[in-house]
Amino acid sequence: MARPTPLSGFPEWLPDGRIVEQHVLDTLRRTFELHGFGGIETRAVEPLEQLLRKGETSKEVYVLRRLQEDAEGGQARSSKADKQLGLHFDLTVPFARYVLENAGHLAFPFKRYQIQKVWRGERPQDGRFREFAQADIDVVGAGDLPYHFEVELPLVMAEALGALRDIGVPEVRVLVNNRRVAEGFYRGLGIDAVDDVLRQIDKLDKVGPEKVAALLVAEAGTTPDQAEACLALAAISGSDGTVVDRVRALAADRGVESELLETGLAELGALIEAASTRAPGVVVADLKIARGLDYYTGSVYETLLVGHEQLGSICSGGRYDTLASDGASTYPGVGLSIGVSRLVSRLLSAGLVRATRSVPSAVVVAVSSEETRPASDAVATTLRARGIPVEVAPAAAKFGKQIRYADRRGIPFVWFPGAGTGGDGTVEAEPHPDQVKDIRSGDQVEADAATWAPPAEDLWPRVVPATH
Amino acid sequence: MARPTPLSGFPEWLPDGRIVEQHVLDTLRRTFELHGFGGIETRAVEPLEQLLRKGETSKEVYVLRRLQEDAEGGQARSSKADKQLGLHFDLTVPFARYVLENAGHLAFPFKRYQIQKVWRGERPQDGRFREFAQADIDVVGAGDLPYHFEVELPLVMAEALGALRDIGVPEVRVLVNNRRVAEGFYRGLGIDAVDDVLRQIDKLDKVGPEKVAALLVAEAGTTPDQAEACLALAAISGSDGTVVDRVRALAADRGVESELLETGLAELGALIEAASTRAPGVVVADLKIARGLDYYTGSVYETLLVGHEQLGSICSGGRYDTLASDGASTYPGVGLSIGVSRLVSRLLSAGLVRATRSVPSAVVVAVSSEETRPASDAVATTLRARGIPVEVAPAAAKFGKQIRYADRRGIPFVWFPGAGTGGDGTVEAEPHPDQVKDIRSGDQVEADAATWAPPAEDLWPRVVPATH
Repeated sequence: MARPTPLSGFPEWLPDGRIVEQHVLDTLRRTFELHGFGGIETRAVEPLEQLLRKGETSKEVYVLRRLQEDAEGGQARSSKADKQLGLHFDLTVPFARYVLENAGHLAFPFKRYQIQKVWRGERPQDGRFREFAQADIDVVGAGDLPYHFEVELPLVMAEALGALRDIGVPEVRVLVNNRRVAEGFYRGLGIDAVDDVLRQIDKLDKVGPEKVAALLVAEAGTTPDQAEACLALAAISGSDGTVVDRVRALAADRGVESELLETGLAELGALIEAASTRAPGVVVADLKIARGLDYYTGSVYETLLVGHEQLGSICSGGRYDTLASDGASTYPGVGLSIGVSRLVSRLLSAGLVRATRSVPSAVVVAVSSEETRPASDAVATTLRARGIPVEVAPAAAKFGKQIRYADRRGIPFVWFPGAGTGGDGTVEAEPHPDQVKDIRSGDQVEADAATWAPPAEDLWPRVVPATH
Repeated sequence: MARPTPLSGFPEWLPDGRIVEQHVLDTLRRTFELHGFGGIETRAVEPLEQLLRKGETSKEVYVLRRLQEDAEGGQARSSKADKQLGLHFDLTVPFARYVLENAGHLAFPFKRYQIQKVWRGERPQDGRFREFAQADIDVVGAGDLPYHFEVELPLVMAEALGALRDIGVPEVRVLVNNRRVAEGFYRGLGIDAVDDVLRQIDKLDKVGPEKVAALLVAEAGTTPDQAEACLALAAISGSDGTVVDRVRALAADRGVESELLETGLAELGALIEAASTRAPGVVVADLKIARGLDYYTGSVYETLLVGHEQLGSICSGGRYDTLASDGASTYPGVGLSIGVSRLVSRLLSAGLVRATRSVPSAVVVAVSSEETRPASDAVATTLRARGIPVEVAPAAAKFGKQIRYADRRGIPFVWFPGAGTGGDGTVEAEPHPDQVKDIRSGDQVEADAATWAPPAEDLWPRVVPATH
């Protein structure tokens, strides 16, 4: 086998990078669980018809076939199209299916987190991956779902991402908007083609307000006055209650009266107010957020990494009035999804964080001869029983080489079993005590495997800001 | 969307089952890390040519194609056969590829664990899954790999599985054999068709010794005497040094002299001896283990769950002299793989273990009116900051209903914020203290969110033997 090369779009990390990713995943999981979200996993595949139900061909689904089917020929395959399976491209479609399939066994409102890989056959460029990990939280109700969950969920995500600050993850800004505000305002202006307007507003960052004004008239059929009012709404942003006041003032100025707008403003105001207490400075209402408003029905969220805004949103989501429906019942939901691979890839490639070592072991137990390996194994067993990660040197090489083995992996301590310890692990009458060396400082001291422990910060590899 | 039904062969767990699986995975991970194995993940896909390199069509590989490719027609696809991707059917092929791809960045011997899903398009029956989780450990050397790793790795797995005993996982027996013993013995008898003999010996449990004797003569070309000797070897098993003595006696009796046999017996003896100290009663030499000996080159391992032997091996592996090779270098390896889904599926379906509740939350904070929800949120925030998993009641329903919300999920405590706490979270001059109710006993006591904690056994859901 010739030396293989990486597959574009399918990221993999070296062991120290995986320690960073694992730390991120563990931190997210802990925050989600502290908030009462239970973990589930769903299978990687869904029936193709379900994956394409919303016309999601843009997600470039990977379709599966068994190699044996191949031998049966293409004709046979197409006749079984209804049974075809594809890899999921997000965790929302599988979650909706899981809720319907298991509704009788779940307690609603049902809060779950789900951390899994997803696959998209997109062209692998611009930091887009074909395989990547997502971390989702959703709450789904049976029949109804109170608004306060639309406040809670982005705050859980803000807390989860905030818990990563001390390893060097930059601050985040959670940008929020509300479908009802936009739709209420547009309808109050006399615009019916709400989705058409949102599609043009979504181009603001790319082409600027003048071109969007022209597009609103040309493509969304608004009057120039209506276009100007839509742009005025999109220009409003802020992280305190004045945002709501400014929208109300704009509406009054344009003669807009809308119950839907009032409902939306009350919701948006409640979110901003709760966020100002629970996550000050993190949540920002941004009325130009349009992406997502065409399929979410209430709140919508995007999240930027401060200083890395060009990376795009690393955590997005919103409210669906119908996450799932089986005809008899409707299940509204609200959720957000962190693009873990995108985040971790940036943390590693930008050199923001690092692991303090590349292996779990805090200690290498040296081996002075293969005959005394059982004594070294016994030391390792004693240390492990006390929760200390340990490995035994692979060969009875010169001690200098065994120390280099540890050094190469960033393992801080090398343990030398006492000369008085017999090869069978038994201790002689007058044993020479064991010694342990901190290979960073060179300090070597007598030690007893039954009581010695490394400093807490050396026990496990830690993930720290890369500048440390 | 009509109510979906499960896909055969693609297991999924309800939230409480996932708690069991997660506990198993966390326990395995901790044991692996205590032994110095670092975690990696590889992408789900490999080039099809790599997956089929060893003629592994029996693994029924799932091949991927992008939906868009489909539109381009079958002809175009077959011309790109060399670029086709398939889902990995184990974690060994991807690991070998990862080692070659990253050899320059890895420190050898390289110890890794890997816990991921794998896919096989087999007919989903007999407890075989099409998607399942595996937990693998392997050590790979550059150029050489000392024998002692063949002793260490099954003991790590025995320890990992043993750490699950207290949740109700049955005892395990690790059955070991050694290619060198079988091959040395057969060659010493004058048999060259070693793999042919092993294939027949593998049928012992199914068809019995008489039929295997006939098959050895008919299919493997042995003499009746040779066949009888092969069966005598296969009949030897035991967990102490007498196994080695009995094989030696048999060899002497049949006039077998073989250096290879002596090497194999020394290795097998060392493994049995180390195991008798480090995992007494767990490791059993079983000379009839043949499956695997045709592709492993040294030790081979299978693991049975005592009382569930018909489930087959839940943890198998062995030694490869060439796990990977890039022409310039050869990388020998030894490893084992736990079939996590098979194990967890049995634990759940046989009712051996259960989670003490179906959600992470230890506490539900009640809400007396939507106006005072912020006060309930503040209590939850205080408890969570102290590491206590908490959720806030979804609606300001009657307290009886809020208690039922907790009861339905197995959440042991309901917290009632004091009447003197203002809706904005501020505390009035003479607040009524908060109270917390253990809904199992009905006991209700005054409590302060800054100091109260649940009993340690109630803090997180635990996984326990189902009979408790």
